[in-house]
This record gives sequence, structure tokens and C-alpha cells, in this order.
Amino acid sequence: MDIYQKALDEHKRLKGKISISLRATPDSQEALSTFYSPGVGEVSRVIAKDPSLLSTYTWTNNLVAVISDGSSVLGLGDIGPEGAMPVMEGKAMLFKHFADVDAVPIVLDVHEPDEIVSAIKAISKSFGAINLEDISAPKCFEIEERLIAELDIPVMHDDQHGTAIVVLAGLINAMKVVGKKLDQCRIVLIGAGSAGTAIAHLLEIYSKPEIIAVDTKGAITSDRPDLTPSKQYLASLNLLAPGRAYSLHDALIGADVVIGVSKAGMLSPEDIKVMNDNAIVFALANPEPEIMPELALSAGAAIVATGRSDFPNQVNNVLAFPGIFRGALDNGVKEINVDHKIAAAMAIASLVPNPSPTEIIPNPLNPKVASAVASVIR
Amino acid sequence: MDIYQKALDEHKRLKGKISISLRATPDSQEALSTFYSPGVGEVSRVIAKDPSLLSTYTWTNNLVAVISDGSSVLGLGDIGPEGAMPVMEGKAMLFKHFADVDAVPIVLDVHEPDEIVSAIKAISKSFGAINLEDISAPKCFEIEERLIAELDIPVMHDDQHGTAIVVLAGLINAMKVVGKKLDQCRIVLIGAGSAGTAIAHLLEIYSKPEIIAVDTKGAITSDRPDLTPSKQYLASLNLLAPGRAYSLHDALIGADVVIGVSKAGMLSPEDIKVMNDNAIVFALANPEPEIMPELALSAGAAIVATGRSDFPNQVNNVLAFPGIFRGALDNGVKEINVDHKIAAAMAIASLVPNPSPTEIIPNPLNPKVASAVASVIR
Repeated sequence: MDIYQKALDEHKRLKGKISISLRATPDSQEALSTFYSPGVGEVSRVIAKDPSLLSTYTWTNNLVAVISDGSSVLGLGDIGPEGAMPVMEGKAMLFKHFADVDAVPIVLDVHEPDEIVSAIKAISKSFGAINLEDISAPKCFEIEERLIAELDIPVMHDDQHGTAIVVLAGLINAMKVVGKKLDQCRIVLIGAGSAGTAIAHLLEIYSKPEIIAVDTKGAITSDRPDLTPSKQYLASLNLLAPGRAYSLHDALIGADVVIGVSKAGMLSPEDIKVMNDNAIVFALANPEPEIMPELALSAGAAIVATGRSDFPNQVNNVLAFPGIFRGALDNGVKEINVDHKIAAAMAIASLVPNPSPTEIIPNPLNPKVASAVASVIR
Repeated sequence: MDIYQKALDEHKRLKGKISISLRATPDSQEALSTFYSPGVGEVSRVIAKDPSLLSTYTWTNNLVAVISDGSSVLGLGDIGPEGAMPVMEGKAMLFKHFADVDAVPIVLDVHEPDEIVSAIKAISKSFGAINLEDISAPKCFEIEERLIAELDIPVMHDDQHGTAIVVLAGLINAMKVVGKKLDQCRIVLIGAGSAGTAIAHLLEIYSKPEIIAVDTKGAITSDRPDLTPSKQYLASLNLLAPGRAYSLHDALIGADVVIGVSKAGMLSPEDIKVMNDNAIVFALANPEPEIMPELALSAGAAIVATGRSDFPNQVNNVLAFPGIFRGALDNGVKEINVDHKIAAAMAIASLVPNPSPTEIIPNPLNPKVASAVASVIR
């Protein structure tokens, strides 16, 4: 039985992946009076007088909303709120298992940025933090930015920052293996969506390497007439001469690192062969990577990472988001900033004491990761 | 230590009343692949193709949202979303304990009917049913009506219908005790808010008694110039001659039943003395009833019910809502209609085989109630 049939069978058998449990049992008159009327009225009165006590007396102190409008779910695209629900519920499962964070999946049946922001603001007092998920680019940028500005709880779009953090962690260790410095590398980025943009931003802040971002039309250069604000930003990160078009293959000539967050088959062995010595290949498309690891290695790559668990060096967001939100909730962090993201990447990298070509990233099941990450989010 | 201090201490010690638990443990690579990527992608694909399968593969099959804007919380009034949260979380606790229904508390930081309806519609695909709670009258009527019309999952405002169902259950048994018929009774209703209006509506459908509703200005008669649509409805239920004002005391002369959903002290022994023989008094204001039971009984009342657990005959919504939503979820009921509400009241009443003046309503802790109610919601 393949994994897809097994997933269907198990989801049906269990009728979902999460449920509600109780911290006390209201099985006596006294318990009813303590946890419901009239006792709960006093708790309400106290919180209404000082809303900062909400987290002292309710489950919001440990609670994250995992919110999507279903517009960019896994590799499936815009499949709507119902289709998104199993993924959001799965994320809630991972939050609980890896970091003991309670998480509630919320799928939105609205799709314009204004409507999404309004709906999330309307329910925001119900939660201690918000994990945005699987919202398409470019609207994801505006939505995250507005919510961070307008809410006083942490908000993070995991497709952007979770991926960027784990990629940076992997690159930190890859540099040790090949003996290069990230600030002297030329990096080619395939894919200019939410993950690609966030990866470029985090790498730039961390060490200012040259980054050539490539989309379906080729390298993103500042003289292209079709650039959204986020692509204008990406264009500013490369040193390509204006006035001509560069293909992906052109961009890869002499590059030290290629990071694919695009789709299967985007890279050929010929592309890898024109890269610099000790080339590092992050082929993160799921489920089929931009190039299969054995092909990249035989074309001269020194290190290959993918999004898959059946190859070495899996880039998996679960290394980042549980610990980031655990730390934010525990330490009263109201905004997850770029320093937190870099600290998280360094914490993840440090869990591999002796990096090697087949081990630059910790195993996603490593139970030490979440607490190591949480400890630096403060 | 009083119950208020105990409630504060316990809420703080437990850090809330509910949490998330897992139906499986993602502690192996295979489990990760089954419940998250790549396996979950197949579940998403299948649901996106046929959204009616959402409840087959996700926790929504057993999930109710308990939603409030905090505009009318217990007896505390408009205390806002943060203040409302402990009550909504308490309701989630009761849902789980009494009927094994998973419930998530959601508090809304918007207050206009349009905004409330939009926010709830935006998140509605995340849930299998919606319990509206502690929303002030008259906006609660419009909000419930629009959501029932526009959503394809059950929506019920419990302050209206939960209370009405338990009141009807109590009256069914009270009639047996005093040997009267409800359709021949004159009923005075003190309070024309959400609960009062719903009680009048359910009693009218059940047996068309005469109902005189009274608000702070006296009996609600059709010639009063200040009537909202719901008060115009209430005015249509009495036989009072137009052209004069009736006080509460006037209205009680010869009445068989008085139902108070108002505030402490509204009824005096002199009010009870002018009622018909075998008067039935439901004094449901919390925590202090409209008249204390011993005063009402010494003034001639045959049966007294209150909202309190320390007197006989507690009218407690927990007798109704867990079973109603349990039944709706289990039996695929898309709209909770008036027949369901009457059937629920009869089911609750039937759990008291030999009604007496001190036992017309089952104990809220009676574990048979929820399943008896659920069995008639189909």
C-alpha cells in the first residue's frame, strides 16, 4: 500500500488528527461552579478589567492559530479552504507533538487581502499567536506585514520564514563542510514566491552574498518591466549587467550555491557542471526535487539537500516553527524579527556538531530541536 | 474560600481549561509522511475534489465553534472579547465532558451585525457546527437568522434556544405536578431579551398559551410606540386591552406561570399572592433570582425553579446544548429547527419519571441527558 492510500485510510479511521482534551473534569457541582457559572464570571470580570490577564487565566497562553485561505497548498495550488484543512490540522499535530503548543486549524473562505486581514483581526483575541500557512504570493507579503503591524501577538507566515530559517541553517553547516564563506558566495535562487523571497531576505541580512533570483522568465534583473515590489527587491540583490536576458543556465555559471524552491526537473546535470567547485545544491521542490540527488552528485555537486525524508539533508519546516512559537509564547515575544530568525537558524545548525556532506541539517524527528530553537526566541 | 476566589485560583493553576490532544503520534518518519507531507497532500486533493468529504477526513465531524463578541456575557453585560473568553472556554469544556463534542472558543473583536456575520462566515469551513453565545439582543436575532440562512452547517444561539428548551422541559413536568394544561395557562414573562423572546416563541409553537411579556417599561402591548420587531412579536401573544399601561403586578393577577429572565428583586411575595392557585415560578436571574425560593413558596407558589445549583429545579442550559449538537453532528442535521427543540425539551422532561414540586428538571450532572437529547435530533 502506498503512502497516499495509507494517509487516506488513517485519516478516515481516526476521523481527523486532533481533538480537545480537558485540564480538569467538571463532574461535580463544585467543579461546575468553579469552571462555569457562577465562578467563571469572576474570571471574566478580572480579565475585562485588565485584558493583559487573558493569558493568565485561559488557554491562549499556549495557543497558536494555524490559518490558511487554501490559495497555495503544498504543491497543489489554490484548492480552497476545505482542501487546506487536512494540512492545517497536520500542522497543529506537529505543533503539539514537537513543542507541546496547542494549535487550532482555521481555514478561511475569503480570498482578498483586505478580507483575509479583517477576518484574522476579528478572531485574533482568541489566540496567543498566529501561524499563517499556504497563502499565495504576492498577497502573503502584504497580509503578513499588515497583521504584524496591527496585532499585538506574534504573526509569522511559515512558508516564508520557516523555510528560510532551515535553509540558512543548512547553508551555515554546508559552508563548514566545503570551507567557503557565505558572504563570498554567489547564490542562484530558483523560484521567486513566498519561500524564495524570504530565503533571499534572510541570507542578505545574514551575510550579504550575491543572490541571483530566477523565475519562469529567467534571471530577475532590475530592467525587467514586469516586476512586483518583491521581485524589484530580488533584482537589487544581483550584480548582473542590465540590458540583456540571463537564463537559469547563464546564472549558474560560476555559482557556489543553487537553491530551488520551484518544481521538478528545473535543473540538469549540465547546469550543475557549470557551477563553481564544491557546488552546493538545495533542490527543495516537493515531492520531486529540481534534480535528483544522485544526478547532482555525479555532475560534481559536493552537497545536496532536498525536501524529502528518503534522502540525506531534509529541509523540513518542522525544525523551525514549533520551537519558534514555543519560545515566543513562553518568553512574551510580541514580534518575531529577523534576529530571532537568524538565531533560530544558528541554533538548528549547532545541533549538528560535525557537519558532513550527508549531514548538514538535524533529523526532523530529533527531539532536542524545538527546545534549542525556543531558547533563542526571547 | 469563596467560589469566586477558587475559580480564579484554579483557572490560573491550570492555565485554562482545555488543550489539544492527538489522535495519533507523529514520532516516526512513516507517521510524519502519513499525517503530513507527502501523505496529507492526497487527503487534501480528495477533499478539494469533493468538499463534502471534509468531515470524513478531518476533525470537523466532531467540532463546534463556541463564538461570542462579548456583548452580553453572563450578567456582566458588554465586557468585550477578552472578558468573554473564559466563559466560551468553559462552554467548550462542558461540550467535551457531557457529549464528547470537540469545541473551540472563538471571541470576536468586531461588534456590528454585518461584521460579526462576515467574520463567522469567513471561518465557518473550519467547523462542523456553530454555537453562538452571549451576543446581546436585538442583534443576536439578526445574526443567528442570517447565519442559518447563509451557512450549510447547524447554527444555534444558545442563550435563546438552550434556555427555552430547558424552560419548556420544566414546564411540561410542572404541568403534570399541578394538574394544569399549558395551552390553558396565562404565562407572564419578565425580560424581553434573547432568552425571553426564544422562550415565548417555543411556548407559542408548543401549545399557544397566552403570554404577557414585560420589560422595564411594563407589559409589552402592541400600541407601545417603542417596539423593536421582536417586541412587536411578543406584543402579539397577549390579550391585553390596548390603550392602557399594565405594570408587572397588573399582569400577574390570575397568571398561572411567571418566568423571570431579568434581574434580582423583580418579584415580591405580593406579586406571587395575586397569581392563580398552584402558581409556578421560574426565577432564572443569575446569580440572584427575581425572588428567593423560600419567599415565593411562602407566598403560595406551588413550584419554584431557579438558575442556581443550590436550590431544587435548576434550569441549566447544559441539559440541552451538548446533546443537541451531538445529535446534529452524528445525524447530519444541517439546521436545528423548532421541532428539534420541542423534541429535546420532551426528552429532557422524560428523564424525570415521577415529577414532584422539587423535581421537575433532571440534575445537570445526570449523564443520561446528553444522549437522550442527541437521539431526538435527527
